Amino acid sequence: MSNKEGQDLPSFRFALEKQEPRIGPGGVTRGASAVEFPVSKGIAGVSMRLEPGGLRELHWHANAAEWAYVISGRCRTTILHPSGDTATDDFGPGDVWYFPRGYGHSIQGLGPGECHFILSFDNGYFSEDHTFSITDWVAHTPSSVVARTLGLTGEDDVAQFPKGEVYFAQGPVPAPELGNRETRPQSTLAMERPSLMTTHRYPLMAQSPRKLAGGTLRLVTAEVFPISTTMAGAILELEPGAIREMHWHPNADEWQYYITGTARMSVFMAQGNAETVEFEAGDVGYAPQGSGHYIENTGDDVCRVLLTFNKGNYQEIGLTEWVASNATQLVATNFQVPEAVAAHLPRDGRFLVPPSDAPH
Amino acid sequence: MSNKEGQDLPSFRFALEKQEPRIGPGGVTRGASAVEFPVSKGIAGVSMRLEPGGLRELHWHANAAEWAYVISGRCRTTILHPSGDTATDDFGPGDVWYFPRGYGHSIQGLGPGECHFILSFDNGYFSEDHTFSITDWVAHTPSSVVARTLGLTGEDDVAQFPKGEVYFAQGPVPAPELGNRETRPQSTLAMERPSLMTTHRYPLMAQSPRKLAGGTLRLVTAEVFPISTTMAGAILELEPGAIREMHWHPNADEWQYYITGTARMSVFMAQGNAETVEFEAGDVGYAPQGSGHYIENTGDDVCRVLLTFNKGNYQEIGLTEWVASNATQLVATNFQVPEAVAAHLPRDGRFLVPPSDAPH
Amino acid sequence: MSNKEGQDLPSFRFALEKQEPRIGPGGVTRGASAVEFPVSKGIAGVSMRLEPGGLRELHWHANAAEWAYVISGRCRTTILHPSGDTATDDFGPGDVWYFPRGYGHSIQGLGPGECHFILSFDNGYFSEDHTFSITDWVAHTPSSVVARTLGLTGEDDVAQFPKGEVYFAQGPVPAPELGNRETRPQSTLAMERPSLMTTHRYPLMAQSPRKLAGGTLRLVTAEVFPISTTMAGAILELEPGAIREMHWHPNADEWQYYITGTARMSVFMAQGNAETVEFEAGDVGYAPQGSGHYIENTGDDVCRVLLTFNKGNYQEIGLTEWVASNATQLVATNFQVPEAVAAHLPRDGRFLVPPSDAPH
Repeated sequence: MSNKEGQDLPSFRFALEKQEPRIGPGGVTRGASAVEFPVSKGIAGVSMRLEPGGLRELHWHANAAEWAYVISGRCRTTILHPSGDTATDDFGPGDVWYFPRGYGHSIQGLGPGECHFILSFDNGYFSEDHTFSITDWVAHTPSSVVARTLGLTGEDDVAQFPKGEVYFAQGPVPAPELGNRETRPQSTLAMERPSLMTTHRYPLMAQSPRKLAGGTLRLVTAEVFPISTTMAGAILELEPGAIREMHWHPNADEWQYYITGTARMSVFMAQGNAETVEFEAGDVGYAPQGSGHYIENTGDDVCRVLLTFNKGNYQEIGLTEWVASNATQLVATNFQVPEAVAAHLPRDGRFLVPPSDAPH
Repeated sequence: MSNKEGQDLPSFRFALEKQEPRIGPGGVTRGASAVEFPVSKGIAGVSMRLEPGGLRELHWHANAAEWAYVISGRCRTTILHPSGDTATDDFGPGDVWYFPRGYGHSIQGLGPGECHFILSFDNGYFSEDHTFSITDWVAHTPSSVVARTLGLTGEDDVAQFPKGEVYFAQGPVPAPELGNRETRPQSTLAMERPSLMTTHRYPLMAQSPRKLAGGTLRLVTAEVFPISTTMAGAILELEPGAIREMHWHPNADEWQYYITGTARMSVFMAQGNAETVEFEAGDVGYAPQGSGHYIENTGDDVCRVLLTFNKGNYQEIGLTEWVASNATQLVATNFQVPEAVAAHLPRDGRFLVPPSDAPH
Repeated sequence: MSNKEGQDLPSFRFALEKQEPRIGPGGVTRGASAVEFPVSKGIAGVSMRLEPGGLRELHWHANAAEWAYVISGRCRTTILHPSGDTATDDFGPGDVWYFPRGYGHSIQGLGPGECHFILSFDNGYFSEDHTFSITDWVAHTPSSVVARTLGLTGEDDVAQFPKGEVYFAQGPVPAPELGNRETRPQSTLAMERPSLMTTHRYPLMAQSPRKLAGGTLRLVTAEVFPISTTMAGAILELEPGAIREMHWHPNADEWQYYITGTARMSVFMAQGNAETVEFEAGDVGYAPQGSGHYIENTGDDVCRVLLTFNKGNYQEIGLTEWVASNATQLVATNFQVPEAVAAHLPRDGRFLVPPSDAPH
């Protein structure tokens, strides 16, 4: 860490997968809000695993929308919109979902094997205090009201219901076809890939990536995934030695989950304040809106990182494009170097620095 | 009150009509902001009464828009827009007005009898500190500036003006026809009911209600009342024993004024926190954005409640519709009951629980 | 100052040009944020002077957009958009620029003579802590990453670069024509005056002013300068003795820089709180959103004031128009004067009070 006045910067790394989990029947979860990871004021995150049939019960979030990326396995979500539209969608590795703030939803593992997914929320102060579960609600409402609302014949029937929040519940694996309670046609929004995509699902890894010397980028914004008005996301793959170049995002915070590999990031916070951090798989990183940063693959394998942003549109400005867009004389004056040196600086923007440029 | 850790929840009830009023010539007012009613951070309210000719003087609010519902009597408002458009409108029982934040306006009783109306503001921290009255302004501006601005011939003329804020003033009842100072044509927006409605007035009780088993609902949103971009409102009537079912609003806080009857509400705030509250006519209730709640008519008469929301569009999700939209198997897993029990839960959404469902 | 309870109001005046400056090679700057000028929570400001060739280095602001007005001299700006569009624009006296939040930009004096301009930011908490300079960033990033990103052949080359923030740098005056590094066509938005205006430049003083008895007004809003979505501005000229009449802005704070002359302003903050302040050239004033205020030329010369607002659209309501828009009877009741007196109050709105109305 370099810091002109020696004071501690907030750390830009949180070892999410090393945290003590919350464990329940059929599910395991680990979370990071601004309480545990103070720098992450704009985005909170969760790593969750569901067994086949494991259900993250019906719930809603009062203060955040939910954006998710499936790392492995398969799961099914249900959602109810205030409009009365309802949808059931199945997800596999590389798929993304988005649920607007306050909409009721559930997630259930489909198997075979565990389903592992990363949730990202557009509010760093998201927490369980703002998560409302259906069983917790029913348990804390007078039983006469519950009985009449749900059409139960007496308060004894209510006694069968849980006395508190279920959160995770182990059930049978749902049938491949939808159940028998669907009262409306499933809401499906025909888009560019009607066979793959619904209103709430975007198959990010099925996207043709932007291929660059040194890696690939797959990006999902509100432009291609219209419901996701408040968040965007990406999968960045860096080859060994490659660098996602020095850049910043004018309009959004960036939240990172390192899926594979190892990496280094420096976060520059102005006035001589910067921190350099090492990451490994399972770690979370954070670059606040406007902060300068880069990501360097420091290992021998591909480094795959999930990036999320708390705006629906994606904006970035890179150092090379910025230097390239200014006159040589200005660049020389700015860096206080001879014009001959400035003349050799980049004349084009580069998103990645390829590994072949690494010193030998 | 049920609360898993025994700490006090903020109360969700405020006995507005039992507060000490502010009384002036021709007017009486009682208010509730987040200072007096701490849970109401998103919406503040006022109950005001004007005698015939009683004037709530020309004023503006720096930090809130004003939405109002007339309970009884008649009054006239004047408003000046920044565009230079001006309007004078007359209101009777069941009518709604909306004045955007910062626009100058006045309200005057027309008689016969007192006019009683409820004001609702889209900011819980609205208060008199943010209310600017014309007499207070003129009294605290150098008299030479006032004299020249108003075209008075000397500072002596200024001495006739009030030395401080008038707030309420008793004047003659204005003539049915408009006065002689109107310098522009009255601004009128032709809408679905051109004979009843102007830009600032929406005749809510003249609306054909949504009739349901157990009661009625009349709703006004920005869709039918376009100027009201930041607030929506409703009149809910519950028959004895009926329940507005368990539900939540994903996008807005709810502020309630109980006009007639008695009622019970539970507000669920997640993590085992809930409070059950009893209401009578003249009370104010509050359900924060995303909180689960219901309203039950506990008396022998119709319970009529005014509801306001701090968003121009109305969103709600009800428990029965939510349960109905999920597969029986999922519901059984979630509630940890046999599928045979889950199969008897609602298969359709219901907005109200009718009184015939009440246990006997 | 008049204040009903005797407590101190925050001062509405800051003597910007009397502050100790930050001085560097080719540049001098003085700033006022909410830290130094507590009332200015919504808008911060800077007065900056650049020598010919003096460069305010490449930088960006993480938390504010920048609106500027050139008082004297000439300068050139460069800017890079996240879209990849880049622009170089030249400015002279009376020109305005706007740079959205987070976009990378630079400013350089073109001579002859000093260039003096006023910057206004749409966030009162703007400060150097939120200003990111390219040299500071490069100096606080590992040299191997800088070398590879900028295509330098070794880390020794990096050693030539500055070890810390340059901020101001003295360079040669740039050539009148653009340099040789421009990689894209200059972005130019054809508007009503294609020969004078580009996306980022609006020639405010070239506008035909609104001429009024007592002075002139030139106004620039997002309507005529579309990129300026978050700010508007104006040049107000008051003849000796003229008054910009008592008014308020429903939607925005107002920040003032007194360019020439002397003036008096009273700011009315409701509940009997008001402050009357005297201004001279180089002072900054502030009128919070919704506050009542006027500006009176107290000197023998024209008073020219730069006004900026933290909304892209301009809204104001004046006392005379407000009085004129209400019935005589209502005005009489409100001010508690006979109708005969009220009948002599203004029947038309006036933006300025002309000097001929001054008492003799």
